[in-house]
Amino acid sequence: MNDAKVNIGLIGAGRIGRLHAEHLAYRIPSGYLCVIADVDEQAARECAARFGVGKAVVDYHAVLDDPKVEAVVVCSPTDTHARIVEEAAAKGKHIFCEKPIDQRLDRIDRALAAVEQAGVKLQVGFNRRFDANFARVREAVASGEIGEPRLLHIISRDPAPPPIAYVKVSGGIFLDMTIHDFDMARFLIGSEVEEVYTAAGVMIDPAIGEAGDLDTAVITLRFASGVIGTIDNSRQAVYGYDQRVEVLGSKGAISTANNYPNAATISGAENVRRDLPLNFFMERYVDSFVTEMAAFVDAVRTDAPVPVTGFDARAPVVMALAARKSHDEHRPVRLDEVDA
Amino acid sequence: MNDAKVNIGLIGAGRIGRLHAEHLAYRIPSGYLCVIADVDEQAARECAARFGVGKAVVDYHAVLDDPKVEAVVVCSPTDTHARIVEEAAAKGKHIFCEKPIDQRLDRIDRALAAVEQAGVKLQVGFNRRFDANFARVREAVASGEIGEPRLLHIISRDPAPPPIAYVKVSGGIFLDMTIHDFDMARFLIGSEVEEVYTAAGVMIDPAIGEAGDLDTAVITLRFASGVIGTIDNSRQAVYGYDQRVEVLGSKGAISTANNYPNAATISGAENVRRDLPLNFFMERYVDSFVTEMAAFVDAVRTDAPVPVTGFDARAPVVMALAARKSHDEHRPVRLDEVDA
Amino acid sequence: MNDAKVNIGLIGAGRIGRLHAEHLAYRIPSGYLCVIADVDEQAARECAARFGVGKAVVDYHAVLDDPKVEAVVVCSPTDTHARIVEEAAAKGKHIFCEKPIDQRLDRIDRALAAVEQAGVKLQVGFNRRFDANFARVREAVASGEIGEPRLLHIISRDPAPPPIAYVKVSGGIFLDMTIHDFDMARFLIGSEVEEVYTAAGVMIDPAIGEAGDLDTAVITLRFASGVIGTIDNSRQAVYGYDQRVEVLGSKGAISTANNYPNAATISGAENVRRDLPLNFFMERYVDSFVTEMAAFVDAVRTDAPVPVTGFDARAPVVMALAARKSHDEHRPVRLDEVDA
Amino acid sequence: MNDAKVNIGLIGAGRIGRLHAEHLAYRIPSGYLCVIADVDEQAARECAARFGVGKAVVDYHAVLDDPKVEAVVVCSPTDTHARIVEEAAAKGKHIFCEKPIDQRLDRIDRALAAVEQAGVKLQVGFNRRFDANFARVREAVASGEIGEPRLLHIISRDPAPPPIAYVKVSGGIFLDMTIHDFDMARFLIGSEVEEVYTAAGVMIDPAIGEAGDLDTAVITLRFASGVIGTIDNSRQAVYGYDQRVEVLGSKGAISTANNYPNAATISGAENVRRDLPLNFFMERYVDSFVTEMAAFVDAVRTDAPVPVTGFDARAPVVMALAARKSHDEHRPVRLDEVDA
Repeated sequence: MNDAKVNIGLIGAGRIGRLHAEHLAYRIPSGYLCVIADVDEQAARECAARFGVGKAVVDYHAVLDDPKVEAVVVCSPTDTHARIVEEAAAKGKHIFCEKPIDQRLDRIDRALAAVEQAGVKLQVGFNRRFDANFARVREAVASGEIGEPRLLHIISRDPAPPPIAYVKVSGGIFLDMTIHDFDMARFLIGSEVEEVYTAAGVMIDPAIGEAGDLDTAVITLRFASGVIGTIDNSRQAVYGYDQRVEVLGSKGAISTANNYPNAATISGAENVRRDLPLNFFMERYVDSFVTEMAAFVDAVRTDAPVPVTGFDARAPVVMALAARKSHDEHRPVRLDEVDA
Repeated sequence: MNDAKVNIGLIGAGRIGRLHAEHLAYRIPSGYLCVIADVDEQAARECAARFGVGKAVVDYHAVLDDPKVEAVVVCSPTDTHARIVEEAAAKGKHIFCEKPIDQRLDRIDRALAAVEQAGVKLQVGFNRRFDANFARVREAVASGEIGEPRLLHIISRDPAPPPIAYVKVSGGIFLDMTIHDFDMARFLIGSEVEEVYTAAGVMIDPAIGEAGDLDTAVITLRFASGVIGTIDNSRQAVYGYDQRVEVLGSKGAISTANNYPNAATISGAENVRRDLPLNFFMERYVDSFVTEMAAFVDAVRTDAPVPVTGFDARAPVVMALAARKSHDEHRPVRLDEVDA
Repeated sequence: MNDAKVNIGLIGAGRIGRLHAEHLAYRIPSGYLCVIADVDEQAARECAARFGVGKAVVDYHAVLDDPKVEAVVVCSPTDTHARIVEEAAAKGKHIFCEKPIDQRLDRIDRALAAVEQAGVKLQVGFNRRFDANFARVREAVASGEIGEPRLLHIISRDPAPPPIAYVKVSGGIFLDMTIHDFDMARFLIGSEVEEVYTAAGVMIDPAIGEAGDLDTAVITLRFASGVIGTIDNSRQAVYGYDQRVEVLGSKGAISTANNYPNAATISGAENVRRDLPLNFFMERYVDSFVTEMAAFVDAVRTDAPVPVTGFDARAPVVMALAARKSHDEHRPVRLDEVDA
Repeated sequence: MNDAKVNIGLIGAGRIGRLHAEHLAYRIPSGYLCVIADVDEQAARECAARFGVGKAVVDYHAVLDDPKVEAVVVCSPTDTHARIVEEAAAKGKHIFCEKPIDQRLDRIDRALAAVEQAGVKLQVGFNRRFDANFARVREAVASGEIGEPRLLHIISRDPAPPPIAYVKVSGGIFLDMTIHDFDMARFLIGSEVEEVYTAAGVMIDPAIGEAGDLDTAVITLRFASGVIGTIDNSRQAVYGYDQRVEVLGSKGAISTANNYPNAATISGAENVRRDLPLNFFMERYVDSFVTEMAAFVDAVRTDAPVPVTGFDARAPVVMALAARKSHDEHRPVRLDEVDA
């Protein structure tokens, strides 16, 4: 009955895993979610029950060993990604893996080598590429609508900082938060970044600094093509999730506004106002999560190339490492300095 | 397995029927679409296959006779609505019916009486009430955020006129198009309209006039509460689907903009521009269709009142009849003049 | 030394008179304001002193009798306009007269006849035509940029109602406030209005109703060209001076936003907001007052036609009278019914 | 007759000199422009005739020697500023000087010392501080409306690059163009910049590079207060003069849009568009030029402090020198490295 559908196993039933489960169950007809694994048995069962998935397991090997499973969606903790990718590749499963594959380049490289050797597909979860706003900007750059790109700005601010406990294991702001923006920069301009310069600080919560991390940063990017870009990151924008980009080209500029829950404006006695922008990445990016997963399922079904590759998974990690090095050494850092 | 779900039968697998089928299949977990009926057997089968519905029938009576079916969604041609509502009510089925129930008041009244007698729920498909923009305006009015409402404006323009063949059976612009705006007016202000005045013409296509209809209209509304409103209708806005409202109150005003496919702005050598607004009601209102159906399923499941009642189905038809009479007689017309 | 300049006398040194005096003194090099008259001697003297005008008089006949004076700017109370226009014309002076020339058609006609007979220029103070926003809309209509116009909407709301004492002598909302919008309607569409229908009420202050006036109105306009329009008037918009128009045409639509003191947006924890629009007609329309006066001075200097004619002065008064009649008789009223 | 007015002499009747002359003649009643000097006698005479100024001279010493002249407005070529400032100070004249005083710090310091010794007022022409948009941003920062500032972005793009001949004598993009943005950065944040990092290139015209200059730059600023900022400069934005700023603070953010010639939006069959932003600094900033000069005249009249001081004239030059050094040495540069 599900002959034409791609049989998928989900590994990790946390927040992002449940999101993908919902989309596979209700929004992506060509995918069939047949099994869910989570080390927390209760979580696996609840997720399976909620989205009508027939099977829930504790050990993800049961997913990898299931011959019916054609593809896996890896949403487990980051430090397990590389290992699961390698094992899934060895079992011939196509892989969708949440970002990043790992915080260490050598592990990423080993995982990518395993994928290459196995000849399976690997797509990494840079969902923002599928967002309507950013896709429109990429289209404007790629089509020549704004001419040759010259300057890029990315504003990417969270509504509030994560818990300190999370900060400590996050790999730091560049690997945890900016990594999306590093990917976005490469995606929008269509050229590789060669050098970064970081100006950053702890402005929001001293505890973040005590944990060895930063909460506010501006990173300058120099692309191989000559384009200069900046990324503005803050862990706290009290008005909500601030996600904007702007590209100046020789024939014009394109910029995006935030997304709002409605298009209503209220004119009162004090001001002219609207409701705050969408406040959470799941609200803001819900469509992009559906689109990226549909694209993955489609690539598997039709044996087409995935839209976000293993190389795309690796490059932002190099950028993140260089950005941290630039901060530590207070100087511009070339990517080849960290990419031994 | 679907114990907690509401078993639903769909009658009519045309454009709007397929839309509801998709939502029931993928977006509304608490509803279970178990059978689809269409006089065109092929259409019924294709729709069922596409959305994983187990049963497809030609005769809608098979749906009404199915004891498992708790509720029906009526998407058949308008002239069959009243009859099916009556029959469904007689069989004890809860009913979601696309608007309008009928173009004639006497038939609506008979259908509503049947519903009342049977004690089933009836929700009519005024989906726009569930749109985020208009819901926000209603909230601003109902909560007192803009004080006492005084003036209302509704702009409601289609991208392009329908085929003349459709115009001829549509019941005319007021029953076919403005009916949504009549409902919106009542919904936003929370008061009944007592009198209408129509200024209208044929400005787009003489064939529309030859068919006895109008293509452009401004209708002035006088509410029982004293509020004065206007509805601006055009069958042709070349820039897309234009759907805006504005309410002025004693403490402020609220107005809505159109919805766009993205939030990108392009500054070029000739102008500063953005892509056209969403062009089709299915794109523009897709979320509201999901929300209205979820609300109906929920009302059935929890035995709660439906958010759009039989009375809400009737009032806009009275307004439409009065609007046409006002045009024909070139004078303001009270609703009680047509509501004998 | 002022050979090339037009020698101008100002009659009436009230609020609007002082505004024109300032513009003639500082913003319009081709005009030379040489005398100011006001029945209040103190007002005349202060105004002259402030703007460096050499002569201040009490009796405006001293202005009309001054052979150096080529043109007069009439800013005295409305009930003196017609008489002064006639006398100024008889003396061969070109005339800029604030709107309206009179509240009675017969007096307007007599004044216009005097102007015609004398062969002097008469420009009436419909300054809004010279506003950048509305001029842009007119350009879009006249140039065909939006195709054939079909629907027009004018929103024109004051921040707060005038004092009741003023209401009583104002001639009523249609002659006092809507008159600008009646002119705007004719200007934007470039066609005459043939019929009006008024829906109006007293929603803001019962004292306005007790004075025999209305404070809130929607007037539907039918143009000779077939265009249908509405004017939305309110004496109270708590958020400021609301002045917007919109025209729908066969090839597109054009709409204007309000003008703001700055282009800054503040995103805070409660909302995304901007400062209120400009709150007072003198701030909002200051540039249009300069431009209209410069256009008048230029027309006199170069013996060119004035951009706002005596006929333009008269037509909105007819519309105002018809609008009131429509309200009183609760029916659409043709302009020829009041224009005997 | 002009007793209460400040008698002013203008030195330099070029483009910016004529602008100030017009404002002093028509927009600033408290200033009296009594003499204009220009090495080009024709230019001096024409400017004087146009704005009704009684005296035109070739040698600016005639202005400085005139005992009636209380203040001078220095609009001569940049390389004469420092010398004229010194001489004017020695003659006890208050000074308004266009930016920059000089391209060399030692000359600026000598001029500032002369001003200090003479006890005269010196205001430098950073007009953008008086622009309504930027003044509003400063107010939001200074009042605490957006909390403690954290991140600043300045976008400052010219419509088109200047002629190469001008580029060669301009002192380079940082001293010629960015200098306004350096001042804006200090003004908005209210803290001094301690370090800059420049990423720049020649992207628009190779001839600019051959002249030793740059045409596109992103400069990262680190403020003493901890704030991090960026300045985005381009010599070519085909859509017009792009002048925006944004500040993120602990309680919110404020950002400004460009200024447009009108507030009209046109919805056509291809897009939704508006006219290009104001294209030239004289249109965009005309009000700010009036306001800065009125502020200077007022400071002289009332013996109040000037709003833009000699120190404000010097600091951006230090920033410009550091920005160039950063580019040349490809590293962040502290301001004290160039401020020996």
